[in-house]
Amino acid sequence: MTMDFEHTTLGQRVIFGTGAAAKKIAAEIDRLDAKHVMVIASDSASEKVADFDDHFTVALWHREVVMHVPAEVADRAVAAARDKDIDLVVTVGGGSATGLGKAVALETRVPIIAVPTTFSGSEATNVWGRTENARKRTGIDDTVLPTTVVYDAELIRDLPGGLAVASGLNALAHCIDSLWGPRVDPINQALAVEGIRALNEGLPSMRADSTDLDGLERTLYGAYLAAVAFASAGSGMHHKIAHVLGGTFNLPHAQTHATILPYVLAYNAPAAGDAEQRMAGAFGALTALDGLQRLRSAVGAPTALADLGFTSDDIAQAVELSLPAIPANNPRDVTAEGLTALLTAALNGSDPAALN
Amino acid sequence: MTMDFEHTTLGQRVIFGTGAAAKKIAAEIDRLDAKHVMVIASDSASEKVADFDDHFTVALWHREVVMHVPAEVADRAVAAARDKDIDLVVTVGGGSATGLGKAVALETRVPIIAVPTTFSGSEATNVWGRTENARKRTGIDDTVLPTTVVYDAELIRDLPGGLAVASGLNALAHCIDSLWGPRVDPINQALAVEGIRALNEGLPSMRADSTDLDGLERTLYGAYLAAVAFASAGSGMHHKIAHVLGGTFNLPHAQTHATILPYVLAYNAPAAGDAEQRMAGAFGALTALDGLQRLRSAVGAPTALADLGFTSDDIAQAVELSLPAIPANNPRDVTAEGLTALLTAALNGSDPAALN
Repeated sequence: MTMDFEHTTLGQRVIFGTGAAAKKIAAEIDRLDAKHVMVIASDSASEKVADFDDHFTVALWHREVVMHVPAEVADRAVAAARDKDIDLVVTVGGGSATGLGKAVALETRVPIIAVPTTFSGSEATNVWGRTENARKRTGIDDTVLPTTVVYDAELIRDLPGGLAVASGLNALAHCIDSLWGPRVDPINQALAVEGIRALNEGLPSMRADSTDLDGLERTLYGAYLAAVAFASAGSGMHHKIAHVLGGTFNLPHAQTHATILPYVLAYNAPAAGDAEQRMAGAFGALTALDGLQRLRSAVGAPTALADLGFTSDDIAQAVELSLPAIPANNPRDVTAEGLTALLTAALNGSDPAALN
Repeated sequence: MTMDFEHTTLGQRVIFGTGAAAKKIAAEIDRLDAKHVMVIASDSASEKVADFDDHFTVALWHREVVMHVPAEVADRAVAAARDKDIDLVVTVGGGSATGLGKAVALETRVPIIAVPTTFSGSEATNVWGRTENARKRTGIDDTVLPTTVVYDAELIRDLPGGLAVASGLNALAHCIDSLWGPRVDPINQALAVEGIRALNEGLPSMRADSTDLDGLERTLYGAYLAAVAFASAGSGMHHKIAHVLGGTFNLPHAQTHATILPYVLAYNAPAAGDAEQRMAGAFGALTALDGLQRLRSAVGAPTALADLGFTSDDIAQAVELSLPAIPANNPRDVTAEGLTALLTAALNGSDPAALN
C-alpha cells in the first residue's frame, strides 16, 4: 500500500470523569474564562443538571430541545443567547441537545462544552444540521465543533437497555464502515479499530447491567472514537444501504443498522485485507464476522429485516437506489446480483457467512 | 480500570504524498490563502526544495538553520519574516528547521506548513525551544503547532542508513514510553500502539534498502504517531533515564535511547498489564520484549552502554539522579536496587529478560 492521503485531525479536549460532570464543566468554564454561560438541557435531563448551580453560575437555562433542530427552535435559542450576552454554551443530552448548541455556536461563534448522554457522537464532529420546511440541511464548520467534551458515565446509567444497545451498535457500525469509507486512511482506521475494541468490551457489560459504570465508560469511549473515525472516513457501503432502507422504506434507524451490519461485513471481509484481521483482533476473534456475531448475540441484536417491515418485494428497488451510492473505493466490487443476495440474506436473517 | 483522564487532541492537517511535496504545499498555500511565503531550508536541503519555484511563489528563502534554535538565529529569521510581510512559513528539514519555523510563528503568529525530513516528530507538537546563553528554554503554545504537515518519503531517501535507523528507534522509544507516561490515557495509548505497528514494519524495510519508499512511508507515519502520542502522554521512565545518561554522562542521544529501551521495557512489562500485550500484538510477537528484540536485531541496534562510554563507576550516580525523576504512575515501583540492576544489565548488554 502506498500512503497517499490527507487527514484532518480536529482539535478538541476530551474529559472522562465519572460522577464529576459539573466539577469538570466548572473547571473548563474557568479555563475558557467564560462569564455568561447558557445551559441547553431538555426537561428530561433536569436531574442530570441539578447540581450545576452548586458548581458554576448559569446565566441562561434553555429547555426547548427538539429532534433534528427545527429552524424556529434554533432561532429562539440564538435569540435567547444573544439577549443574555452568552459567551459559552453547555449542552447536556443526545444529538438533539448537541445539535441545538451547534446551531447557537454557528450564529454566535461562542464555544461549546458538550456533555453527551447517548452514543450519537455528534459531540466529536464539526457537522451541524437544521430542519426547515421538513428538510434537514447540514453543513461543516469548525466553529460548531465542541471545544470540550465531558463524558460522565453516571449521566447515562438510566438509559433504557434497548435504546442503549441500539445506540451502541450504531456506534459500532460507524467504526466498521469507517474501515472502507471514501476517505479512509491509516489514522482513522486505527481509531476505528480502537473503537471496536472498546465497544466489544463495553456493550455486553452494559447489556448485562445498565448501571455498570465500567461498561458505560467503555461504550462512551468507543462511541467517541466511532464518531471521530466516521467523521473523518465518511459513509461507506453500510451507511449507504442503511440510508436507503431508512429513507425509502421507513425502516427503524437503529435496528436497521444493527441488522444489516453483519451482511455488509461478510460481503466486504474477503476483500478487506489487513482491515479484516485488525477488526478480528479488536473483537478478540478469529475473524471479524465471528467477533461481530458473538457480540450481536451477547447483546440480543435484531437478526432479520423481515421483522422490521422489509419485504422481498422491496429488494429490487433497494438495490437500484443503493448501488450507485456505494463508494468507488469499496473493497469488493458491488453488483446488483451481489447486493440482491446480501439484502435477501438480511431479509431472512440467514447466515451472513454464506454470502461468500 | 476506571476512565478518568483529560486528553487534548491538537487540530492539524496531515498529508502523505510521496514525490508530491511541492504540489501538496502549493495546494495548502491556496487553501490558507497565503500571499507572502517564507521557506526555511538549510543549504543541505537545497535539492529537496529545488522544484518549489515551479509550484508556488516564494517571497523569502531563509537558509540559516542551526541546531537547538539559537536566539540570534531566531531573531534574524523573525526580522526577515517581518521585513517581507510574511504570512506563511514552510519549513523543510529536521527538528532544527521546524524549530526555527516555530520561533518565527511564535513572534509573528503566521501558520506553518512543516515538511519533515527526519523522524524527530517536532512537526506534530505545540512545543517550541530557543537557546540563549547556552541554555535551552522550551514552552508550549498552540500557535507553533504546524497547521499542516506534508510527509514526502522521496525527500528522505538520502538519509544515511545509520542516522535513519537511530532516528526511527528514537520514535519507537517515544511510542513505548508513552504507554506509561505521566499523562497516559487510552487515546494516546492507541496512537502509540499504532505507531509501534508502523515502525515495526517500516524500520527493517528502511534498513534493508534506504530507498524503499514503502518502508520510508511507514517509518514517517510511525514517527508522526510517536510524536502525537508522546506529546500527549509525556516522558516516562525510559526518557527520564535517557535524559540523565545523555545530560550528565554525555552519552550519544540516539544510541543511548536504543540501548536502554529493552531494559526499561523488560523492567516494566510484568506490571504493564494490557499495554504489554497490545505492544506484543503491534510487534506481531508473543511478548513485547520479544518483538522489540527481534526488531532491534533486524536493524542492528546497539546493545551495551559500555560501548557508548558508560562505566560501572557511573551507575550509582545515574541511579541517584534518575530515581526521583521517574513518574509516580510508572507501572512497576522503581527502587535503587531495581534501577542498579537495570543499568548494570544495560552496561553489559546482558539479556534484558533476566531482569525479572
